[in-house]
Amino acid sequence: MDRFMELAMAEAEAGMAEGGIPIGSVLVCDGKVLGSGRNQRVQLGSAIRHGEMDALENAGRHPAAVYARSTLYTTLSPCAMCSGAILLYGIPHVVIGENKSFRGEEDLLISRGVELEVLDDPDCIALMEQFIRENPELWNEDIGV
Amino acid sequence: MDRFMELAMAEAEAGMAEGGIPIGSVLVCDGKVLGSGRNQRVQLGSAIRHGEMDALENAGRHPAAVYARSTLYTTLSPCAMCSGAILLYGIPHVVIGENKSFRGEEDLLISRGVELEVLDDPDCIALMEQFIRENPELWNEDIGV
Repeated sequence: MDRFMELAMAEAEAGMAEGGIPIGSVLVCDGKVLGSGRNQRVQLGSAIRHGEMDALENAGRHPAAVYARSTLYTTLSPCAMCSGAILLYGIPHVVIGENKSFRGEEDLLISRGVELEVLDDPDCIALMEQFIRENPELWNEDIGV
Repeated sequence: MDRFMELAMAEAEAGMAEGGIPIGSVLVCDGKVLGSGRNQRVQLGSAIRHGEMDALENAGRHPAAVYARSTLYTTLSPCAMCSGAILLYGIPHVVIGENKSFRGEEDLLISRGVELEVLDDPDCIALMEQFIRENPELWNEDIGV
């Protein structure tokens, strides 16, 4: 596994260990990590800190030129909110651990020119499948269904 | 002005007084305010707390059934990130103070069945126009350009 996806996976696993939703993300620019994060619904009672959003928040404020050179790594296919954040900031490249357990707004991202790379990583799939099986209500809350 | 849009405007004005970006939002369900908020880029150094996101965060965690009965009031047309959050949570109705100074992803929202009401409010327009004129770099950072 790519080292940035390994870091995203480590964030997801840390979230799982905290009793949270195991999705992690890393924002990378010019080969350097700007920020990493994980879903904070349980830990912070947050409605907006999905893994991708938490990574963007932890990365801090940046001008558009930085986002335009960045790649977002995320263990799970990004939902509408996180896809919208990717579009807002013009992040051109998203590496997705898996989209088997949930497929977000990939078609919208592709239609706007974002390059997606889906790894179909078995560890990412196994982690999400276990979580969803054990926490269906929490999962539904997180994806708004 | 509708009392919920008045509250959104009061949030925007409070943000302006703090040196922040003057955009405010209120999430309302069954005639009651679940949460209100304002853009926190300057105040919290936040890349994700646009007014709408701050209102959603301050409203706390809710099941999909609550969002499905909610209306989001926001002083300015929602960007891609905030529109994505509206889609994630299935918020069916958005009242927008104005879309003259910035028009977000209204077409996407309409295409997904979200009902939009644009007030073209002169106070909302005047506040944003003043802010953008005086803070073009900060504004560009906030909308990713």
